[in-house]
Amino acid sequence: MMKVALSVLLFLVAMSSAFGKYMPKTGKRIPETLSRGWGDQLIWAQTYEEALYWSRSRNKPLLVIFHLENCPHSQALKKVFSEDNEIQKILDEQFVVLNLVYETTDKHLSPDGQYVPRILFVDPSMTVRADINGRYSNRMYAYEPSDVKILLSNMKKAQKLLKSEL
Amino acid sequence: MMKVALSVLLFLVAMSSAFGKYMPKTGKRIPETLSRGWGDQLIWAQTYEEALYWSRSRNKPLLVIFHLENCPHSQALKKVFSEDNEIQKILDEQFVVLNLVYETTDKHLSPDGQYVPRILFVDPSMTVRADINGRYSNRMYAYEPSDVKILLSNMKKAQKLLKSEL
Repeated sequence: MMKVALSVLLFLVAMSSAFGKYMPKTGKRIPETLSRGWGDQLIWAQTYEEALYWSRSRNKPLLVIFHLENCPHSQALKKVFSEDNEIQKILDEQFVVLNLVYETTDKHLSPDGQYVPRILFVDPSMTVRADINGRYSNRMYAYEPSDVKILLSNMKKAQKLLKSEL
Repeated sequence: MMKVALSVLLFLVAMSSAFGKYMPKTGKRIPETLSRGWGDQLIWAQTYEEALYWSRSRNKPLLVIFHLENCPHSQALKKVFSEDNEIQKILDEQFVVLNLVYETTDKHLSPDGQYVPRILFVDPSMTVRADINGRYSNRMYAYEPSDVKILLSNMKKAQKLLKSEL
């Protein structure tokens, strides 16, 4: 009898905590992650300021991805990017990473315009590496899913740090 | 026989996809969410620029939380904040929300210094509401867990929008 009462009590407690939490009228949402699908095992900076700070203090290059959730080119690049273990491993161990769906006020991050997807590298000396680009002359920082090898080679370029002028 | 072969094949595919993903040497990580525990059912802006844009375009006030993961005062406030259904409901329906663990470059967001936890309101006209504060004269934008009623009353103040001067 005691056991039954305890079970009922535990059940009621469980129910009240399940129903007690705020729920939007439109139904339960899955919380958005900082990775936004670009690599769930990487530790993503939230803002550009934070990413620059990490880059400087750890002396690691920064990779910034500009993308949009409803852009098929961004989605296609994200798929190969997140599934490429070589990219993910190098980024995890050697880079600071940031992905943004909203532009920053820093014009250096859009050397040839604001388009997505676009990938910029920033040196720990806080210099945007406008010299590291992909293979499209009209959108120098764009990458297609088939450009993974170029991206990897650019990551290696970014790892050769500029001499800090600070 | 066909069925067995198919099962083995499916098993191998499942295994290869489970073991094929990049795994950090330190073990699997749980991806950080944009909410960082301040309300998993709210839709959080990622950056201040993004939050200001949402606030202006939706004509909703913005609530900005500055906090730190390893700060016990931040943690204590987060617990009551995330579990208070009235706060969560009003924020979800009437506000734009942003939480930051790294300071922005905008000095208006630190009228009396950079400390955590600290909560600032911003009007859709992009005016930081330095007039909406808590009950501590030395840290005007700090809230303790017992200050939930003051926070709610301040949220209601913030909902009375300033006249846009734009």
